[in-house]
Amino acid sequence: MVDLQVLARDVHAELNGEADRGKVADYIPELAKVSLNKFGIAIANLDGVCFTAGDADEAFSIQSISKVFALALALGKVGDALWRRVGREPSGSAFNSIIQLEHEKGIPRNPFINAGAIVVSDIILAGHRPREAIGEILRFVRVAANDETVSIDPAVARSEQEHGFRNAALANYMRAFGNIRNSVELTLGVYFHQCAIEMNCVQLAQAGLFLANGGCDPRSGISVVSRERARRISALMLTCGHYDGSGDFAFKVGFPGKSGVGGGILAVVPGKASIAVWSPGLNAQGNSLLGTKALERIAQRTGWSVFGT
Amino acid sequence: MVDLQVLARDVHAELNGEADRGKVADYIPELAKVSLNKFGIAIANLDGVCFTAGDADEAFSIQSISKVFALALALGKVGDALWRRVGREPSGSAFNSIIQLEHEKGIPRNPFINAGAIVVSDIILAGHRPREAIGEILRFVRVAANDETVSIDPAVARSEQEHGFRNAALANYMRAFGNIRNSVELTLGVYFHQCAIEMNCVQLAQAGLFLANGGCDPRSGISVVSRERARRISALMLTCGHYDGSGDFAFKVGFPGKSGVGGGILAVVPGKASIAVWSPGLNAQGNSLLGTKALERIAQRTGWSVFGT
Amino acid sequence: MVDLQVLARDVHAELNGEADRGKVADYIPELAKVSLNKFGIAIANLDGVCFTAGDADEAFSIQSISKVFALALALGKVGDALWRRVGREPSGSAFNSIIQLEHEKGIPRNPFINAGAIVVSDIILAGHRPREAIGEILRFVRVAANDETVSIDPAVARSEQEHGFRNAALANYMRAFGNIRNSVELTLGVYFHQCAIEMNCVQLAQAGLFLANGGCDPRSGISVVSRERARRISALMLTCGHYDGSGDFAFKVGFPGKSGVGGGILAVVPGKASIAVWSPGLNAQGNSLLGTKALERIAQRTGWSVFGT
Amino acid sequence: MVDLQVLARDVHAELNGEADRGKVADYIPELAKVSLNKFGIAIANLDGVCFTAGDADEAFSIQSISKVFALALALGKVGDALWRRVGREPSGSAFNSIIQLEHEKGIPRNPFINAGAIVVSDIILAGHRPREAIGEILRFVRVAANDETVSIDPAVARSEQEHGFRNAALANYMRAFGNIRNSVELTLGVYFHQCAIEMNCVQLAQAGLFLANGGCDPRSGISVVSRERARRISALMLTCGHYDGSGDFAFKVGFPGKSGVGGGILAVVPGKASIAVWSPGLNAQGNSLLGTKALERIAQRTGWSVFGT
Repeated sequence: MVDLQVLARDVHAELNGEADRGKVADYIPELAKVSLNKFGIAIANLDGVCFTAGDADEAFSIQSISKVFALALALGKVGDALWRRVGREPSGSAFNSIIQLEHEKGIPRNPFINAGAIVVSDIILAGHRPREAIGEILRFVRVAANDETVSIDPAVARSEQEHGFRNAALANYMRAFGNIRNSVELTLGVYFHQCAIEMNCVQLAQAGLFLANGGCDPRSGISVVSRERARRISALMLTCGHYDGSGDFAFKVGFPGKSGVGGGILAVVPGKASIAVWSPGLNAQGNSLLGTKALERIAQRTGWSVFGT
Repeated sequence: MVDLQVLARDVHAELNGEADRGKVADYIPELAKVSLNKFGIAIANLDGVCFTAGDADEAFSIQSISKVFALALALGKVGDALWRRVGREPSGSAFNSIIQLEHEKGIPRNPFINAGAIVVSDIILAGHRPREAIGEILRFVRVAANDETVSIDPAVARSEQEHGFRNAALANYMRAFGNIRNSVELTLGVYFHQCAIEMNCVQLAQAGLFLANGGCDPRSGISVVSRERARRISALMLTCGHYDGSGDFAFKVGFPGKSGVGGGILAVVPGKASIAVWSPGLNAQGNSLLGTKALERIAQRTGWSVFGT
Repeated sequence: MVDLQVLARDVHAELNGEADRGKVADYIPELAKVSLNKFGIAIANLDGVCFTAGDADEAFSIQSISKVFALALALGKVGDALWRRVGREPSGSAFNSIIQLEHEKGIPRNPFINAGAIVVSDIILAGHRPREAIGEILRFVRVAANDETVSIDPAVARSEQEHGFRNAALANYMRAFGNIRNSVELTLGVYFHQCAIEMNCVQLAQAGLFLANGGCDPRSGISVVSRERARRISALMLTCGHYDGSGDFAFKVGFPGKSGVGGGILAVVPGKASIAVWSPGLNAQGNSLLGTKALERIAQRTGWSVFGT
Repeated sequence: MVDLQVLARDVHAELNGEADRGKVADYIPELAKVSLNKFGIAIANLDGVCFTAGDADEAFSIQSISKVFALALALGKVGDALWRRVGREPSGSAFNSIIQLEHEKGIPRNPFINAGAIVVSDIILAGHRPREAIGEILRFVRVAANDETVSIDPAVARSEQEHGFRNAALANYMRAFGNIRNSVELTLGVYFHQCAIEMNCVQLAQAGLFLANGGCDPRSGISVVSRERARRISALMLTCGHYDGSGDFAFKVGFPGKSGVGGGILAVVPGKASIAVWSPGLNAQGNSLLGTKALERIAQRTGWSVFGT
């Protein structure tokens, strides 16, 4: 039996000295100014106990990790009807590619690329004002994290909006095919605010526990999603959670994860743990370089793998 | 605890009456003449005991399922050097697409699409005569299946060769980039013979046991591949095993599988079982229609899922 | 020597009874409600004399034909610097495709597909208010047509704006690469108004005379563009003027032309004539079906071809 | 009136000192060993008189320029039925791209990219032995050039065959769609020999005269193709003759041309002249760098342009 506290500290210590830490995302100034030296790890076991190392208490922009929570929320609202508007296949291309949308007539490949997540935002927005939809997403994350202090960084949200031309292209393109149903501006407003949620590794690891625990938060006992839905969201994280590096992540790490350009990764080991890592430098596929390495080592030391025996 | 014999029979009985059974592959006459009514199931537990229903004893052409065994063999020969010539990402396109090869300069996306499997054949062939390479693949499958009677259907191999223009296009294309190193004819000869291996569901389920059991055949005790390699091959099966239906298979079934155009699917439940299903009618993605449904039901009844708790 | 009046009447009479007239563009209601029966021809010789048949006096929405005039205007403003932001190659894809933009980092293939024309609008807008830029385009067309009554249909412009999601996608996408420099809304405002210019065949044929006459309006004697520029704009019309039907148009008709989804085509026979045809039904490539046939017959009867001897 | 002899000499003299001469094609050793310093020009007027400069008498491999003669020959055999198997649109991609073939189910975009020319070879081969088909192509070129000494370089043909994996990929791919009807080996044999035809600038310029002269050889008076066919082949040269640099060539040079990777370009000025230029260094689009510049200068000095007045 691995001591998770020792594990977190050891992995952090081993990797913290690495010179090659990737490249911080620079498409918005708010992300670009985060220090490349940040590196945090939090491992939450199924009792909800959290073991940490490094900058695990420092908040960062969760960015695309929010797509996991938004998907869970949207499935709760519309159920499998969601899959008429979003696919479930790995994309085989970059996170913000628009090519696939032309070939498939406005239906994004999966809910974890930008186009798919924008459709999910559009579903959550339906019949509400943007402020309400954003509030609902934030509430969902707070319940999952069991922490009322989780919040949105308005400067990041504003900056996303000001620089979000590729996302505006995706949204307008899908609107042309009828797959965005609210106004493009309002749907993107929801999407940009969701991406701007700030969390630290501890909050994030705890917010992922329901996925590791059959849909149920082991601390509060609340059923966040059904057991089957928890599995299916996990399956999507494994096949689509790391953009065009998803296959490699499954191969090397072996359990589901979802990365964000802020440098965070939420990983889920069914029946074992929920793990959050954060280091803002990204690799060529846009996933945290140190974060990915940290998860590889955690997998090696623990033997955790959904493909294991 | 589910009674696997009852399970196999029930699932077979429930689905055997289905009118919509998909479409038999017709690109070679040998496959086209197989009856759409065939339907077999075999579930092997980790003691090597096999529970069957329907046409589980009738041999069929395993086609692309052979890619799993060839990959395991090639990894045994050259190790991770293999990954310099083949990727590990889902393809996002059809099994015989050539587009990706142009974008990625002759490196196939993964070893389970045709282009990737042809490179694997080329690796196995290196330094040997085709007859030897084919013999080696066949021996590997016989050892895995614990059955010396597994053989190759020469009529199918010949027919593949006569109609294999798209595969010849793929091989020549990769040869132009230096990613096929033997003569195209010889490498394709190996590939076509490997695809023409005939097995029944019982043999196939037993041949998959080493993947479900940490790399080791539970009957013979022989370590076929290392524990880590078994996990990694399983990870590739989950992310890439069903062509452009892989994400959907992971979502609905929840454990690794590899399909073939002969209508077979080999599925692996780590620590639980190895399952072979066969029904020659294919769905739009080229995977067995009844076979996929059967695996969905088996997953539902048993609760088996790599994402489960 | 062909009698152009007889020619116009004969070709009109021969084709006017055709049952298959294509399909009226229906992406905005204003275009959809135009009668499929409309069919006009105007042939202007280099003396500025116009020979007409059918509905040659009825105004229609020139749509993409306006791209020729906007290009001439923008080249007058910034010269060859324009070609740093727009290519000169046929697109090999549909008029509103976004795929090419991703492959070529926001640089449209040519100024006659939507993306390229939007960049041209952005260039004309630079340093002005939209109203001024629109006024300048309209003035250019009025001078070319020698007719002050040419105007913009505000209902069409408004409707383009309301349904212009694909164009908004293109503009936002190019903005992300820095190839749109004004606000997307303002640039699209200019573009949508330019597309909404209304002209009849007589006006349009006369507006094309400067291209057939070495850059100079033969009636007024005014040099609209230089001789070299007239040739180069004509070359672009030949290679790129009919979207993915440009090669076919060059093959069958043999002189430069530019079509619009309103069903108009402006064709230019250097040293001979400027021709406008209009019939709102479109073929599969989005070009006027009867209009294209009319130009083929005119080419056959006159022997006009830039490839002729 | 320009003195064509002075023109040829001046343009040669002006450009011959250029340091940047592009890059010699190196995919086969026979082409790679040609000196980058070679540079020849031949201009044939409609009387068949030829004005030359530089290395105009030195034979080179005409490569893709042969596609013009093969197309003319094939159209003579099967007429417009050819267009059921080959398109007439610019490709929007590289000369040896295979992507388009997948999107358009084995129908090449035009007869001047490799895939299209291989179909043309297949048409010429139909019902003959390869030796006969090759003989027929060679005879056609000899008649057009009015020169019985034109021949094929067997070393080049052999080398093409040995390194022709991308062409083999194209041919096999089209065979899979039924658009190659003879054996792939035999069709490619014809194609590779056709590409290996050797000519010098004088022979080539004379061989293009029938296109500049309404289909008729002005020296012999023989009608090689009909007037309409001469125009249509010229139209295809203009829209598709320079791969993905065709639009630019039309824009800058303004008359039809066809380039080959051997560094030759055959250009046709209807009613004026046939021009051959040769310099083995290629630009980024695979067209002769000095050759293209020479044609631009010839166009400027003479005012020749199909778009001129």
